[in-house]
Parts: sequence; structure tokens; C-alpha cells
Amino acid sequence: MNHNAISLQHFKAADGFWKDEMELIRTKVLPYQWDSLNDRVEGAAPSYCMRNFKIAGKLLKERKEPGTSAKDLVSTLRGCESVPEDPKHLEDKFYGFVFQDSDFSKWIEAVAYSLINHPDAALEKTADEAIDIVCEAQLDNGYLDTFYIINGMEQAFTNLRDHHELYCFGHLTEGAVAYYEATGKRKLLDAVIRFADYIDSYFGPEEGKCKGYPGHEIAEMALVRLYEVTGEERYLKLAQFFIDERGKQPYYWDNEKHLEKLGEGERYAYNQAHRPVREQEEAVGHAVRAVYLYSGMADVAKLTKDEKLWDACKKLWDSVTRQKMYITGGIGASHIEEAFSFPFDLPNDTAYAETCASIGLIFWARRMLAYETKAEYADIMELALYNTVLAGMDLSGTRFFYVNPLEVLPEASQKDERKYHVKPVRRKWFGCACCPPNLARLVGSVPAYAFTETEDTLYMHLHIAGEVTKNVQGKEASFAVASNLPWAGNVSITYQGQQETAVKLAVRVPGWCKKEKLNVPAHIAYHEENGYLYFSGDWQKGDMIQLEFPMEVKFYQANPSVRETIGKVAVKKGPVVYCAEGVDNGESLHQYQVLADQPIEEGTVQICGKQFPCMKIKAVKDMEAWDEKNLYQEYHLTKQQETELTLIPYYAWANRGENEMMVWLRQH
Amino acid sequence: MNHNAISLQHFKAADGFWKDEMELIRTKVLPYQWDSLNDRVEGAAPSYCMRNFKIAGKLLKERKEPGTSAKDLVSTLRGCESVPEDPKHLEDKFYGFVFQDSDFSKWIEAVAYSLINHPDAALEKTADEAIDIVCEAQLDNGYLDTFYIINGMEQAFTNLRDHHELYCFGHLTEGAVAYYEATGKRKLLDAVIRFADYIDSYFGPEEGKCKGYPGHEIAEMALVRLYEVTGEERYLKLAQFFIDERGKQPYYWDNEKHLEKLGEGERYAYNQAHRPVREQEEAVGHAVRAVYLYSGMADVAKLTKDEKLWDACKKLWDSVTRQKMYITGGIGASHIEEAFSFPFDLPNDTAYAETCASIGLIFWARRMLAYETKAEYADIMELALYNTVLAGMDLSGTRFFYVNPLEVLPEASQKDERKYHVKPVRRKWFGCACCPPNLARLVGSVPAYAFTETEDTLYMHLHIAGEVTKNVQGKEASFAVASNLPWAGNVSITYQGQQETAVKLAVRVPGWCKKEKLNVPAHIAYHEENGYLYFSGDWQKGDMIQLEFPMEVKFYQANPSVRETIGKVAVKKGPVVYCAEGVDNGESLHQYQVLADQPIEEGTVQICGKQFPCMKIKAVKDMEAWDEKNLYQEYHLTKQQETELTLIPYYAWANRGENEMMVWLRQH
Repeated sequence: MNHNAISLQHFKAADGFWKDEMELIRTKVLPYQWDSLNDRVEGAAPSYCMRNFKIAGKLLKERKEPGTSAKDLVSTLRGCESVPEDPKHLEDKFYGFVFQDSDFSKWIEAVAYSLINHPDAALEKTADEAIDIVCEAQLDNGYLDTFYIINGMEQAFTNLRDHHELYCFGHLTEGAVAYYEATGKRKLLDAVIRFADYIDSYFGPEEGKCKGYPGHEIAEMALVRLYEVTGEERYLKLAQFFIDERGKQPYYWDNEKHLEKLGEGERYAYNQAHRPVREQEEAVGHAVRAVYLYSGMADVAKLTKDEKLWDACKKLWDSVTRQKMYITGGIGASHIEEAFSFPFDLPNDTAYAETCASIGLIFWARRMLAYETKAEYADIMELALYNTVLAGMDLSGTRFFYVNPLEVLPEASQKDERKYHVKPVRRKWFGCACCPPNLARLVGSVPAYAFTETEDTLYMHLHIAGEVTKNVQGKEASFAVASNLPWAGNVSITYQGQQETAVKLAVRVPGWCKKEKLNVPAHIAYHEENGYLYFSGDWQKGDMIQLEFPMEVKFYQANPSVRETIGKVAVKKGPVVYCAEGVDNGESLHQYQVLADQPIEEGTVQICGKQFPCMKIKAVKDMEAWDEKNLYQEYHLTKQQETELTLIPYYAWANRGENEMMVWLRQH
Repeated sequence: MNHNAISLQHFKAADGFWKDEMELIRTKVLPYQWDSLNDRVEGAAPSYCMRNFKIAGKLLKERKEPGTSAKDLVSTLRGCESVPEDPKHLEDKFYGFVFQDSDFSKWIEAVAYSLINHPDAALEKTADEAIDIVCEAQLDNGYLDTFYIINGMEQAFTNLRDHHELYCFGHLTEGAVAYYEATGKRKLLDAVIRFADYIDSYFGPEEGKCKGYPGHEIAEMALVRLYEVTGEERYLKLAQFFIDERGKQPYYWDNEKHLEKLGEGERYAYNQAHRPVREQEEAVGHAVRAVYLYSGMADVAKLTKDEKLWDACKKLWDSVTRQKMYITGGIGASHIEEAFSFPFDLPNDTAYAETCASIGLIFWARRMLAYETKAEYADIMELALYNTVLAGMDLSGTRFFYVNPLEVLPEASQKDERKYHVKPVRRKWFGCACCPPNLARLVGSVPAYAFTETEDTLYMHLHIAGEVTKNVQGKEASFAVASNLPWAGNVSITYQGQQETAVKLAVRVPGWCKKEKLNVPAHIAYHEENGYLYFSGDWQKGDMIQLEFPMEVKFYQANPSVRETIGKVAVKKGPVVYCAEGVDNGESLHQYQVLADQPIEEGTVQICGKQFPCMKIKAVKDMEAWDEKNLYQEYHLTKQQETELTLIPYYAWANRGENEMMVWLRQH
């Protein structure tokens, strides 16, 4: 019953929402990011990524520096402050964060998906050349992480908690597998296999082997992917080892020499290593790390039929989605340690809600689905995708958000240090540029989240337009999907196969839809289970299933335990959350009170030349002018005037300059 | 027309509110703080204050250490982390913050006031012995700051921005003057005069003298006080010099070697030295520093008739009280740099509102009053006093708040690093213990804030019970004041003089009182001006003025530009702000909605064996249980039940264990 994602080769996007997004990735994001990786974007924080590979591979010139001082190591860990701004003054050493290699890995993964969706010889040539540079850096023993290759291998694997070697390995693996699947070219995959074998010889349950595990998770799910493409069971076993060792006492990391102490609270909770993973019930610590771990746990639980591990995944899923997730699918409420806060602590104006964390939530959701077919997981996947993830990028594909707040006052972002992390406009790039290439690789592989398959069933979790193919008992079953998502709930699915097949089709009924309407050929049987409609029968070419998921715009409220949203409402239509911006409504958005019992009027608005739906909602505002001489005055009932607020899709905010924004609006 | 504070000798407290507070200071706070200064309070952060004086004065033993390393200096500046916890391991060096000397200075000042109010031979003996220790540390040239005496005088006055020498001098001066005025003993005063003369020889406008000025203000107002007690004009001139130099470009501090960079924003705004003080219009930076500076500015403006300086004081006053002050009289909204935030940014749950900042606001208010007799200044003095200042201490006088939030969720204080500074219960002491002794000296000298005088007029700004005397043309005019403040607005003032005098009496009509009622002997004329009732006539023994300031409990609202209080109300009766605590109301206070159009019922409540008024207000709460499976759901109108909230005086909160607290309540 376990699902696998479909191969991207088996989907061809049709014109519409996701084809546009993928085209944006291909034509804008990937070239822009390639320039970023090569430090060629003016006014943007340099990446140093490809430069580090060249230094490590001795392609630039011989290194003069013997290594990096402890002080530099600290700066490197903390950020890029120590890096000279003028590239002419760069020395032949490692620059950027310890995890800078992963910028390349995410980019090559995104390139791979793009090449499947849209072959592009020039892009493939660039990618091949980049792979040549990367592989040149690999040591004879298979090790491939430029930070230690440049700074001295004697320190390799000595700071697993902070130093991201296994994280970089994980990303490189994901990139290599994707590139191999896209192009059939093995060079990077072979390099990764050698690296993986080296790691496998170093870590493991056997006596004499290192009992450490990654400080930043991802290797777990990457190793599963490598296992799936190679069939080599040792990679799955290594993933399982990392998961099993995590949080065991005495703590492995206690005997490492760490340059930075972690914050207060339970030791190693930041890294989800405070206790064995099967005993974890509350999602804690760094949000991206957490969901990457949980993804790996779900993978391993599925493949090893580990019910205890699965139970932990379910508890952690509930912890996140019932107590620690914004209505936008954002997770990780606190900018301090980019972490989950305590249950129901979801501040809007200091929210962190990192783009990568929502991407990781999507990774995890698909893996939960792969174990258990329940629409709930796909609902969250869809929510995170259409809101926080897409908000991570501007409409031009060249500006990015790392942090995705639900309320912004530009003055506060400038003057209040507590909100410095909340940017009112997107940035060109980041010193720590995890989000932009992560976003590119996710958007490029959306079909693999939209569709999964078991032996005889094709699952449609997200309703994206295109043609999807599945092999069943040697025969090709093919469906053409037309969809108006995310703006309307009309979906039609037409069987395109040349032959009859025994394929079953399962289509998710979105959680936001109260009662779906169906039009199904008489010879196709169907039933509903756990939020999925299952169709089966003798498919004939042209068979069309018409689905209508009535998509009404509604006001939403949060669990009253959430202090920051009490007495407030948000507007959502289908999976899309709406927000009010200053440019449409004037400033001081907090002074509006929404009439949540009044109907919402739908309209359209132009943003950067593109048409978007907008929502007009009724609100009231105090009429009386306040005497500025008094900061406080006796309360009296104030006359109010009726007015209106215009709301736009959350993900499209901050495309029209710096202004206020608000998702949760005070209710009258 | 300029006022001076009355001498404390001219007031004798009657039984009631302030006598109780002063008794608490005398019997509990002063002995407790003396133990603290001598590191004898178990479980409390050590002060090291008296120890440092003994080391500096070679009373403990010879110093072995040649000085303090740069690393230790940084630790010293940042806090007490580097101090060994076990006092047996202490070396013979300086411990604590660079400003640790000032703990003594504030304590001796508080002792002085207490000795006036209530002579106490044992306390005076302890104080004399403490003064002996302190004076032993003074160098031959008059210098008296243990940090540099112990660590090496070659560094003295080299880091005026951070190192608090002039701040410690200021506090020592205030303490010395007070002790001299209380006891007539000159030892400490003479020491301070020698120190002042040394500083005067070092700093000044003359060529060759240092053009620096204090990084933490207070010397300005302290020098004015020294000028007033000695009549030596050079001290006033030195105060004026410090004020005039401040913020001049090029910045003096740019050429000092500072160990720590200050935060972002305009350079030196943290110290109010970003521009010349006469050009400052917005209160910025560290709140305590700011109001200490503004106090000195008002002093100098009054004495030198400097209208430009006065104009700056007025603009800054408006900036604070119209845009940057909590309803509790708390100021300094941001815990980052303990600073003012931008206008109208007054978050309740991350509020800093340091006790010392409100104390400084009271210093400043009296000095504004001394220049201009407007009730507005005294209103703020009263507000800060009865709320934030008194909240700084528990009802036993042995636990203290540094930070005075307007909303507390204990779980957030424990788990959310953004709120670590917000303590849900008061502490025994602080490494940086500025607030407790500052509170003691203010409470002990409240009569000097309640009453000021000009040549022929006695001003009553606060209505505190006791007997107050004034000399007019050689004759003694004496009034007995009975008052129910802060709980009720009945005040009677009875002329007690044995002789007729030409004294005039001015009594403030509180801003919270809409229309006062009066009962005045026929031969006493009166009129009202700028919020004061002026009484004059041929006073005869027994003449009684009866005043009633109707004190109604009311809901208040804030300027709608304050985002954090929009749609919320607070309860205030007269000067006293009320708050809801969990112990009376259960938790989840945010779920209540107050019916602000319903009457408020007054009652009483016992807190730690003391009776306090309480307010019962009508509220509603949602009746429906929330399905915990959903973090968000479609909005629908929920059935609500009527309920009640009990509110207690804000300053009495957190005396019954750890629980939620809320001043601003959501309005229905």
C-alpha cells in the first residue's frame, strides 16, 4: 500500500498556474541563482559557493593559506560578517557559511527538474560544467565537502552538531539523484555514491565505527532516495542508523568540541536530539531541521515497517499542525533559533515562518501520505505550497523572502530590533541562501507531490493541470487533468490511454470543500475513503470525470488558545489565504474592524501586470479624531463609519513596494 | 517663581499610605539592601559593592592582581557571568558591574531620608561605618571610583561612554548631600566635594581640559544639587558644560576606545548624544539615561533661564508622555538596550518599563514643575509613582521587579527567549541592582515630590497625609494634611500655624478628576490656574480646606495609533491602574471580552494579609468548546456567557505566586 512519488518524466504540465510557475523557475530563477552561486548579482550578498568548489578542486589557484583560524571559523558559523565586500580582496580560502556547498546541490536539483519539464541544452551544458567543477573537489577517499577540504581534513566529522557536512552530503545526494533521473548522466551520482560509501565506512553500528549523527538533518531522507535509485540496502540502513542513534544518552555530541553553545532549554532540543526520536511527542527546536528529520523518519518507518517510528511521526505531525502552524502553513514561530515556540504561541508580527520550513513541511506531508492515505496530509501540503512557499519569491522570480510574517509594519522592521528579521520587501539574495534554491527545487518538482502511485493506483493529491501517465501491468494509463486550482475548484480528468487498463484513480477531496459534486461515467465505480475519491472500472479513452469542489471565500478563526489571533479573523478561499496591504487600503490596518457576518465580494486586481483575485470585505473604522495631546483617555463608545478592505492573495504581497500587511484582522 | 522641593525636615508623615510605605523601607528594605550590598542574602545575586570599596581602600587585604584583563573588562561590562559563584574563590579584584559603587550611594541616600522621617541610632551608626569604608577608598587627588582605583588609574576617564565613573560620581553626590542634610555630618559630603573639584579640574570649556561628558547621565542633576547645598557656582557651570557638550560634532566619544559597539540606528542615540540636546525633539535610547539627562536639563534651564533648553525639555516631555509611555507610567518599551521604541510602539507582553525609568520620570516631572506650575507634570509623577514604581517592590519589601510588563504569561517568560526579561515573580536581587535602592530612595523622599515651595507659596502636588511646614518671612506656616489617596479623593488641609502668615497654598487638582468640590473658610480666597487651586488669606489656626476630588473607576482606552492596545480597555480609578490576575480569574485571560459599557463594582480583596480595593467588571467568554483537532476553522458567531473579572491594583500584582496578568483587556 506504500506510495511512491511518480517520476517527473510521467507528467507533462498543461498551460496554467503551475506551468507558469515552472517557467518562471526555468527562465528567471535558475539563471539568476546560477549568477548568485558565482557571485555575479550586483548588490546581493555573495554566495562563494562555486568559488569554494574551485578552490577545493585547485581550479582557481593554489591555496596559500594553511587553514582557517578558530576566529574565522566562528565568523563563518555565525554569518558572513568577516567576508571582505570587495571580491578582489578575497584570499584563497573558504568563504561563506559551512553549508555553502548546498547552494549548488539545491540548484542542480532544480535544474534537473526543469530539464525534465522543459529540455534546455544550454542549461544542461552549464549544469554539466558545474558538475565537473564540483567533482574536481572530491578527495580520493570519496569525501566531498569544501569546508574541510580547504580548511584541513584533520577536523572532518569532529563537529557533527554544527558543521553541516552530513547536511551538505544529503543535499548533494538529492541533487545527484535528481540529475541522474533527469539526464541519465551518472557523473555526479557516482561521486555521491563514493561519498556515501565513505560515510558508510565511517559511521555505523559496528564496533569501531563513529556513533555520531547529523546536527542538521536531511541525510536521512537523502540516503533513502539513494537507496531507492541504487537498490543498495546499506544506504537505507545508514539512514536508519542516524535516526536510531539520535538523542541516545550519553549524548554523542557532548564529547565534540563545539564553538558555539546552543540556547537555553533542554540540551540538543534545538537539533531534535534531546531524546530518542521514538520518544518525541512535541515538535521542538529549529523548524527546518525538525521537518527534515520527520521526513526521514517517515521514509524509514514506511520502508522498515517500524510502527513505533510511525507513531512518533503521527504525534509530531499533530503537534505541528494542531498547535504550531500558521494559517499560511508557515512553521517555526520564533526567530530565535528559527525554532518552534511553545504550543499555540503564533505571533504574527514577529513570526519567523521560514520559507524552507514550509518546504520541509511539504516533504514531510508527502512522506506521511506515502504511509497513510489521508487527505489531511495533502491539505497541509497544499496550504503550505500556495501560501508560505510561493510567498518566498516575488512575481519576477528574482527577490526572495526568508521570513514570512503574517503582519508587517515597515517602521517596526526598521526601528524595532525584535523585528529586524521581518523584512517588508523581498531581498535579492541572502548570505545564508537556503530558501531561494530550495524553493526552486520544490516548485520544479511539484508534480511529484501532486501525484503518487502504488502498484495499481494513481493518487492525485494536488489538482494540477497536465498529463500524467502510469504503468499498470505493462500498460500505459494516461490522464489529462484540467484544473482551475488554486482559484476555483473545477477539475476534470480525462482518460487518455490508448488501451484499457486496470488502473485505479484516487483523487483528494480538499479539506476546505464541504461537499464535492461529481460527474462520472456510468461504467466507472467510485467511493470515498479518508478524503479520497477512488475511481475504478474499465477505462476507455475519453472517459471524463468532472469534479467540482465548491470553493467559497470564508472568514476563518483560530483556536482560542492562540493569543495573537483572539478576536481576529482571516480570509481564505480554498487553499489561498488573503491579506490586506497598505497600498490598497491605506496605512494603520490595525484600526479596521471587520464585519465577519457580512458577505465577501470577489473582484480582481492587477499586481505587476498580472491579474489576481481580490476580496472586498466590509469593515468599520472609528470616525472620531483623537486628541494627540492625550495618549490615554476615558473610554467612550465611538462613532464608526462603514468602509471596505481589499485583500489580495497572501503569496502576492510585497510586490508593490514597502507597506503594511496584515493577515489576521480585528473582528467587529 | 522657581520652585524648590521642600526640605524633608519640614514634613512629618501621618498614619496612612505613605507612612506605611516609608516604614516598609525603613524596617525591611534598608536592612535587606545593606545585607545585599555586603553579599549576605542567600540565593540572591551578589552585589560586591562594599567589598569593592574595601578592596580599593585596602581594608580587606593587599591586592595581588595587577589589574583586570581586557576579557574581564568585557565580562564586567556585560554582566556578572565571569564572577565565581562561591565567594571563597574571590580574588582581590573588582567584581560586579562598573557601576557597582552606586548601589551604596543609593542606599545611603535612602538611609538619609529614612533618618529624617524616623531617627534610628543603630541605622545611623551602620551608615557612618559604611561611609568610613567608602571614604577610605578615596585617592589623594579626590578621585573615588573603585573600578579604576582597583584596576589601574591610567585608564580613568578613558571610556566615558560606557564606564559610568561620572554616573557613580553623580549618585555618590546625591547620597552625600542627602546624608549631610539628614544628619549634618560632612564626612561624605566633603569627600564628594573633593571628587567634584577633581572632576571640575579635569573637565571643562577651558583649553587643555577634557571635553568629554557622561555616557550615563545623572552627574548633571547631581551637580545642581551640590551647587544648591554649597552655593559653589562652578558645580552648576560643570553641569551646564556636560549638557552643552553633549552631542556636539565631531563626537567626543569617537576617539575613545570602546569595548562594545552600540546597537544600530543613529550613532549615540542610545546615550542621547546623537545631536546637541537643544536640538532633540524625540525621546530616544536608554530610557533611564534619557530621563536623568532631561532632569538635569530642566534643572539647568531653570537656574540659567535657558529658554532653548527649556523648549527642548518640553518637546521631549511631549514625546514621552504623548507617544511613549504606558498607562502605568512605565517608559522604555524595548528590552533591547532598555530603550524607548518608536512612537506609539508600546507592546504589553514584551514591555521593559524599567522601575528606574519611571523613578527618573518622576525626577524629571518635579523639575518640569519647578519651571512651570502645570498639573500635567504632577499627574505623570503621580501615575508613575502609584503604578510602575510601587510595582517594583513586593508587599514584603524584599523582592523586586526590574521590568514591569503590562501582560504576562508565565509559560512565555520561561519558553520564549523574547520574553525572558519579563519575570512573572519578583526577584531577591539583581546583578545589576539599580532598581531596588533607587526605589528606596524615591519612596523615602516622596514628601519632597509631594511638596515644593517658592518664596511665599507652598505647592502640594501629591496629596499625602502628614504635617508640612513652611517658613514665610521668618514665620512658620504649618498645614496638617489628611488624605485618602490613592484610594479616594478626599483631602483636608488644616492650618496649624501658631501665627498668622502670608503663606499661599497651591493644591493640584488631579487630571483624573473632572470637577472638584471645595469647602473653604470664607476669609480664604481661591482661584484655579493650570490645574492648581491657589488659596490665600489671613490664615488662622484651625482653618480647614476640604477638597473632594471625585474618584470614579473608569475604563480607559489608548490613542488608536498604539497597535497593541487597539480594541482594548484598561481600568483605572484615580491614579491607580488595575489589572487582572490568574489567581482571581483563572488562566487564559485573553479569552475574556470586557463589557465596557457596564458598571464596575468595587470591592475588597486580601493580598498577603493586606486589604486592597478590587474591581469587578462584566465580561463575556465563548461558551463553545473548540475541537482541538483543528487549529483553524471557519468563523461562526459563537455563543457567549456572561461572566466577571476581578481586577486588583497593578502595583500589587505578583504577590500570590506565578500567574497570568493583564492590564489591557479585550473589549466586547
